[in-house]
Amino acid sequence: MRRYSIASIPGDGIGREVVPAAIEVLTAAAAKCGFVLEFRHFDWSCQTYLKTGKMMPDDGLDRLRDHDAVFLGAVGFPGVPDHISLWGLLLPIRREFEQYVNLRPVRLLPGIASPLRDKAPGDIDFWVVRENSEGEYSQIGGRTGTGENEIVVQQAIFTRRGTDRILRYAFDFARRSGRRHVTSATKSNGLYHSMPFWDERFAAIGAEYPDVAADQYHVDILAARFVISPERFNVVVGSNLFGDILSDLGPGITGTIAVAPSANLNPERRFPSMFEPVHGSAPDIAGQGIANPIGQIWSGAMMLEHLGEDEAAALVMRALEASLIAPDIEKTPDLGGNGTTAGFAEAIRTKLLGF
Amino acid sequence: MRRYSIASIPGDGIGREVVPAAIEVLTAAAAKCGFVLEFRHFDWSCQTYLKTGKMMPDDGLDRLRDHDAVFLGAVGFPGVPDHISLWGLLLPIRREFEQYVNLRPVRLLPGIASPLRDKAPGDIDFWVVRENSEGEYSQIGGRTGTGENEIVVQQAIFTRRGTDRILRYAFDFARRSGRRHVTSATKSNGLYHSMPFWDERFAAIGAEYPDVAADQYHVDILAARFVISPERFNVVVGSNLFGDILSDLGPGITGTIAVAPSANLNPERRFPSMFEPVHGSAPDIAGQGIANPIGQIWSGAMMLEHLGEDEAAALVMRALEASLIAPDIEKTPDLGGNGTTAGFAEAIRTKLLGF
Ligand SMILES: CC(C)[C@H](C(=O)O)[C@@H](O)C(=O)O
Ligand SMILES: CC(C)[C@H](C(=O)O)[C@@H](O)C(=O)O
Repeated sequence: MRRYSIASIPGDGIGREVVPAAIEVLTAAAAKCGFVLEFRHFDWSCQTYLKTGKMMPDDGLDRLRDHDAVFLGAVGFPGVPDHISLWGLLLPIRREFEQYVNLRPVRLLPGIASPLRDKAPGDIDFWVVRENSEGEYSQIGGRTGTGENEIVVQQAIFTRRGTDRILRYAFDFARRSGRRHVTSATKSNGLYHSMPFWDERFAAIGAEYPDVAADQYHVDILAARFVISPERFNVVVGSNLFGDILSDLGPGITGTIAVAPSANLNPERRFPSMFEPVHGSAPDIAGQGIANPIGQIWSGAMMLEHLGEDEAAALVMRALEASLIAPDIEKTPDLGGNGTTAGFAEAIRTKLLGF
Repeated sequence: MRRYSIASIPGDGIGREVVPAAIEVLTAAAAKCGFVLEFRHFDWSCQTYLKTGKMMPDDGLDRLRDHDAVFLGAVGFPGVPDHISLWGLLLPIRREFEQYVNLRPVRLLPGIASPLRDKAPGDIDFWVVRENSEGEYSQIGGRTGTGENEIVVQQAIFTRRGTDRILRYAFDFARRSGRRHVTSATKSNGLYHSMPFWDERFAAIGAEYPDVAADQYHVDILAARFVISPERFNVVVGSNLFGDILSDLGPGITGTIAVAPSANLNPERRFPSMFEPVHGSAPDIAGQGIANPIGQIWSGAMMLEHLGEDEAAALVMRALEASLIAPDIEKTPDLGGNGTTAGFAEAIRTKLLGF
């Protein structure tokens, strides 16, 4: 029997609710397809930080290293500054395990209304490929001067290696996707050093893929185009920060951030990849058991695919999409229903078992 | 008779078409309200750069200094790298003249369809207040290493003075606007030094305005909220880069970037302020005489307001809005019409003269 060891980190807030719910669904899919997912739970969170002064133990990364994948909920909670919680858990995992690709679908699901006029499933269907290990997210910099004279410096670092590998991933991915079109997010008119370099590398790597169309937009106008003409995109590649913004805006145009998944990939498979929803820990509704589990479940489907379990991944997606349009299934309040996290996930599991 | 000296810089591409068109409308408004706008034209552009190696003469800024305002079209054209053209003209003007506020309305105009479902004029009506003189837009940084080992460093600089003054402007503006709500764009979970500092100053300045509600979102989720719930915003304040992105996304949700205006303000009036549309030089349609002049005209209305000519500003806006819904006025192709830049502007001028 095929077995996969998965490190699960529910994290904070609604992460603690949607992760167990999603695990039920994934486990059912595994059983149906004849393999086993062995989840090991790591209770690392802002709670841990408040108790121990650390988001995870010193050997945290080593404890994760031998798993086939990491299944993460959400990190961050009021009481712990965000830059502490994220640089103490999520960001070190992405970096240490060279998860340099953050892959996020922007896809309008059936049963979910886009805030954009006249859009149906199929009209919005593209991918954001985000650089996930360097760039604008950097701890280099600091403060100098005091009071009125204070100055803060924040450094962004773009390496040729880091830039080339994400661009190459985007072009390879576009080639596999069939639509063969990569759009680069730049801002070379304002960011004097980093983005002209990014553009240069985009042109150089693009030249290696004559069969893939390439274009680029400044990130400001690109954001506007997500809203005005989302049909035109296939694969959008951006730096850590631009990819972050665009891959939240993407779920925005497909109706809700609550359902959007993401994969933090180490494409070489030297290290475990990590799967997490795009949404955060949602302190405002945490503890009520009403969070939408779809983003976490869809992230799980991406994990199954990464593990090579395509059939199980497809089953999960089929169950999820069918449940969204099933009139008798009670959805969570964010989708206009009265359901609970557990109830909605259980309905999806039942749907899946029925196939 | 009141006289104002205005430096006009049409710049590149469609800037050369919409600036003269807008000047006709503004001149008519001035005549009607009993004052004179004296335009002095500066032919600085990428053409200039290709001929002279400079976007403007060495004493360019000095030549602008004594004007009451600068009226700019668009800068940037294929053949000159964007970071050369922008850092050679637009950005030095913003900085030298301490135009540290970039003010941009996000307002759905009558006669223009929002790409968002069910939005009518009135539903989307807020302001982006963008820091315009420092932050992520910086020439500090550079490259080191060669070939595979190349590394690029891009530095962002946030000063306390620069941060406080833009935040204070936002709170003052919100107070004047009546709705009294300021939303800050942050990303303190990823940008380790700059954004925690920004948040600290936002809290400190906000405390000086107990009568103004203050909240903050990470820029990624904020972008999504622009699409999902634009009604909730009144004044959104952001850094140079975040303000840039959000103030293009804003016009995106109100239908088209072609109509959006902006004011680069030196609130202390020590230096001239500059008024320019949000759109760029649009090389794809330049030279055809079909560019939409609305963004330039609306920028002109903001200029009139800045000059204290509120009545003239209101007249321009009334003529502009009336023209957008007048069935007998031929609009430019981007609005679905067959009109020309000159013809559309002339119709607006006629409307204005008829009031
Ligand atoms: C042309 C470019 C440098 C400029 C900017 O980013 O400031 C433009 O996008 C704007 O918003 O005025
Ligand atoms: C929590 C935060 C640091 C993170 C990011 O910006 O990468 C999140 O927004 C995401 O997109 O995964």
